[in-house]
Amino acid sequence: MSQEETEGERLAELAKRRGYFFGASGAYGGAAGFYTFGPQGASLKSNVEDAWRERFTVQEGNFEVEAPTIMPEPVFEASGHLDGFDDMLVECPQCGESHRADHLIEDETGIEEAETLPIPEVEDLIEEHEIQCPACGAHLAGEPVDDFNLMFETNIGPGSSTPGYLRPETAQGIFVEFPRIKEYARNSLPFGVTQIGRAYRNEISPRKSIVRTREFTQAELEQFVDPERDEPDLESVKDVEVTLYPATEQEQDDGGYVETTVGAAVEEGIVGDAWVGYFLGVAQEWYERIGVDMDRFRFRQHLPGERAHYAADCWDAESEVDGDWIEIAGFAYRGDYDLSKHDEYGDDEFTIFRQFDEPKEVEEAVVEPDMSVLGPEFGGAAGDVKAALEDLAERDPSAFEGDVVEVEVDGETHEVDADVANFRIEERTVSGEHITPHVIEPSFGVDRTVYTLLAHAYERDEVDGEARSFLSLSPEVAPTDVGVFPLVSNVERLVERAEGIVDDLRTAGFSVVYDDSGSIGRRYRRQDEVGTPFCVTVDRDGLEGDGPDTVTIRERDTARQVRVPVSDLVDELRAVESGDRPFDDLVDAYELVAPGADG
Amino acid sequence: MSQEETEGERLAELAKRRGYFFGASGAYGGAAGFYTFGPQGASLKSNVEDAWRERFTVQEGNFEVEAPTIMPEPVFEASGHLDGFDDMLVECPQCGESHRADHLIEDETGIEEAETLPIPEVEDLIEEHEIQCPACGAHLAGEPVDDFNLMFETNIGPGSSTPGYLRPETAQGIFVEFPRIKEYARNSLPFGVTQIGRAYRNEISPRKSIVRTREFTQAELEQFVDPERDEPDLESVKDVEVTLYPATEQEQDDGGYVETTVGAAVEEGIVGDAWVGYFLGVAQEWYERIGVDMDRFRFRQHLPGERAHYAADCWDAESEVDGDWIEIAGFAYRGDYDLSKHDEYGDDEFTIFRQFDEPKEVEEAVVEPDMSVLGPEFGGAAGDVKAALEDLAERDPSAFEGDVVEVEVDGETHEVDADVANFRIEERTVSGEHITPHVIEPSFGVDRTVYTLLAHAYERDEVDGEARSFLSLSPEVAPTDVGVFPLVSNVERLVERAEGIVDDLRTAGFSVVYDDSGSIGRRYRRQDEVGTPFCVTVDRDGLEGDGPDTVTIRERDTARQVRVPVSDLVDELRAVESGDRPFDDLVDAYELVAPGADG
Repeated sequence: MSQEETEGERLAELAKRRGYFFGASGAYGGAAGFYTFGPQGASLKSNVEDAWRERFTVQEGNFEVEAPTIMPEPVFEASGHLDGFDDMLVECPQCGESHRADHLIEDETGIEEAETLPIPEVEDLIEEHEIQCPACGAHLAGEPVDDFNLMFETNIGPGSSTPGYLRPETAQGIFVEFPRIKEYARNSLPFGVTQIGRAYRNEISPRKSIVRTREFTQAELEQFVDPERDEPDLESVKDVEVTLYPATEQEQDDGGYVETTVGAAVEEGIVGDAWVGYFLGVAQEWYERIGVDMDRFRFRQHLPGERAHYAADCWDAESEVDGDWIEIAGFAYRGDYDLSKHDEYGDDEFTIFRQFDEPKEVEEAVVEPDMSVLGPEFGGAAGDVKAALEDLAERDPSAFEGDVVEVEVDGETHEVDADVANFRIEERTVSGEHITPHVIEPSFGVDRTVYTLLAHAYERDEVDGEARSFLSLSPEVAPTDVGVFPLVSNVERLVERAEGIVDDLRTAGFSVVYDDSGSIGRRYRRQDEVGTPFCVTVDRDGLEGDGPDTVTIRERDTARQVRVPVSDLVDELRAVESGDRPFDDLVDAYELVAPGADG
Repeated sequence: MSQEETEGERLAELAKRRGYFFGASGAYGGAAGFYTFGPQGASLKSNVEDAWRERFTVQEGNFEVEAPTIMPEPVFEASGHLDGFDDMLVECPQCGESHRADHLIEDETGIEEAETLPIPEVEDLIEEHEIQCPACGAHLAGEPVDDFNLMFETNIGPGSSTPGYLRPETAQGIFVEFPRIKEYARNSLPFGVTQIGRAYRNEISPRKSIVRTREFTQAELEQFVDPERDEPDLESVKDVEVTLYPATEQEQDDGGYVETTVGAAVEEGIVGDAWVGYFLGVAQEWYERIGVDMDRFRFRQHLPGERAHYAADCWDAESEVDGDWIEIAGFAYRGDYDLSKHDEYGDDEFTIFRQFDEPKEVEEAVVEPDMSVLGPEFGGAAGDVKAALEDLAERDPSAFEGDVVEVEVDGETHEVDADVANFRIEERTVSGEHITPHVIEPSFGVDRTVYTLLAHAYERDEVDGEARSFLSLSPEVAPTDVGVFPLVSNVERLVERAEGIVDDLRTAGFSVVYDDSGSIGRRYRRQDEVGTPFCVTVDRDGLEGDGPDTVTIRERDTARQVRVPVSDLVDELRAVESGDRPFDDLVDAYELVAPGADG
């Protein structure tokens, strides 16, 4: 087995050779953590995004927005990213290489979640365990460990007075526009807002291909709810079967997975919140639909130490690739944390007006000071005295019980006659109150989903006695829908007919590759390896004879071929492509081409 | 007329109120030049991108890629952006505001294209014309004018040793990966590569809403061709009618538009290159299809001074909005400029091997020095002497005619016996040569296209005696496909049925808005104003009676309504939405609902 390449290596090789993805700017030595998606990869990625949009925006009836990737500094002061979005950096004194100190400790000591440790402790552990630089072997003991902020910084406009940052998550572009978006939702909860776009993290040491990069694509949904009133449509996903790995199981030596349904998991409290449960169910079905191998998939609950302090519950969707579990999505109940922060820092209302079922009578303390007295008495400070009286009435109505009221303005105490203050208790009818919506956030990593799909779709078998490898990508996400070939390239009639079919299929909306070079067998293998679900071949047999002209359609996974009239081609391809018609139906309806035709 | 708001103002107001776009991060005072697309706008923009992809990638059979937006410095050294991508900056000494010096001069003096002037001349003009700061009125005479690079800079990884830049155009992400992409094209020209993505320009003073922003979306196509062999499919667009505004006409006082066809324009040399002509034709049809008003559209040729030095010909697609012509796309013949630059700077091959029609016999000067002599004689320098001999043979074969050959190595002259050099002329068969492909670049601004569509779609009329405004967006790009309403919201049967129809339509892939608040007339107006092409209303009449249940479908532009069986709804909507069936057909086939039903 040691000679065999790993799944990760095989994937990187295939990805580069067939144009899925490769390190960017290679002609200039590249830059670690940046990848370019080649023709196949860009198409696969864009199909994954479309499938996500279809499920999480269109089907859910949510709003999609598109915010800038550069945002001004105050946004990240509010969100906490400016202060807290750090990794621990240690630099090798000999070779100058930078490393994540917490990762070095985890690798050397078996300590888990070292990133939660305080910096002095991390420095001590480096010394104690005589940790060396993985690049050159120099000892790192005594080197300072620093907090390194992971946001890319830049300047907006000329000069350096307006710092801007590349967003570390798409979510802030949604939260910060909540005051406007709620208007489009006509101020009524619940509603969801989605965004698909780039996010950036200046990782100290990017690694694992497109799994941990410095620029990546997220698909995020922020579901805004009234925590006391709104409930998800749990009924629609209650029977979805899921593999859960709760925190309690992870903490036990012999802990294992819980195989259950979404409905049972919520009912039994394994998943603490119904909204989180709902999205686990929707995600489970969506991942299955786009082709994730559900035997290599699980939902893992965050351990208490792993969770952000404001998150009541958090689960990750994880896929297994190359023996490792990769986080490909997170589902967090974030409470009112995000909107409260922006309400505190920002100059706008991050709340929703919640109508009471019945209007309520409330008692309200009111002062209406006589300014014709306050004015002459306090001069320029009269306005401040008035404000102080109003403030006091709200805080402590009992202060108005005597003849004289004392208020403090700018450190000075002023006395005001109770008559002049004009204090009273009024009954008022209120129809509702302002509440800060709670947020449930399903957040998907698109690049990691693409990586998972490629890994899980890779298969090997034998066709006509020859070994082949192919990608069993689902037609919904496969980069190319149809390959079209003339059986041989030196017969003009076949070439022309094939080119005409290419035009027809493109007009019908199919993504088509035309190929006339090499043996027909090699051309099939090429399409197998990039996951093209169907190939159409134009041969002499199909154009000669008495009946209507025919071509063959070949199904990738089974290499079976059927002979179909050209006039039915678009309709039949559309039917098998969409899944409306299984290929078996075509095999029943048309002539199956004899095996061996693949060679 | 002075009281009437301008088209630009009306657009900005509508865009903000209805969620098309608005200044980003408003709760934090915003940042000039950054916009967020709200739900309607993000959907419209994404539909425009899909329509572009369908035409310029899928239909053309091109490759789409997705490169990072951050690229390392050497890429922009090669592309010329690091040195030359500047605007002229002057800062006000009083208020500190930054301005584009060339724009100030253009506004004050009537000089055109002031950006082509040298800086000292610009400084003199500011003094001469006593130009003042537009913000505070201070005199700018004597203030230095500086080159300001428009790229946003950042640092990759810890420390400041690896500068990176946000790409100022998506194109570089294509050019720089040419060596890899050509492999997926199997090293054969012509092929086209597309990319849709963000680009960034740190404008000194962003302006005009989403027309000149600091972060924007481009859709670019780089068509790589063999300039001597490849020709476009001009036949397919030769009859497309275009409005051209050639440089020669712009330079004349009474110059005007040339109304012609693509075929004639290329034949008569008005458009200098057939590939450029081809793309003008494709673009003309595409813009018309997505809803640009072709009476407010033209192709304008760049003036000789406006053109990049390497561009043989360049045309802009321009749309008229608010009395101004906006550049919404550019079509440039860029020759071999881009690939040559990267071939020179980068460490890879930016060429294509062009096969000769017939292999050619060529004479080649060859030396094969006897190293057993050179080695002892020259020691460590023997290898360099050999290389110098090979170099000389290629440059000047006549140098080998005597008994002794002289070569220079590191400033020292060495003599080598002609016998030892072993010089000869060999005949060799070569099958082809390496050429640098030429590039034709159609480059589209997506945000400006969205802006144009909104401006051109805005219409006003009267329905049932009431004034209304609506967006006559084409169904292909309209943000929402269908609005679904129960006629009244307090009859559970109508609400339930309407909600069921929403589910059915979403499952069928429609983007649907459900609305049950306010009068039916107001709900229609709301959808009119965001350009929803069709609305479906569930009323009592449709659910009572003997026949099958029916609902009404209303067409936005004419406000006509027909009554259609619920069972046919999905199919009929699909047919009118795609344009396969005109609404008139529905009017013929079904019962037209009496006018006045809109109120």
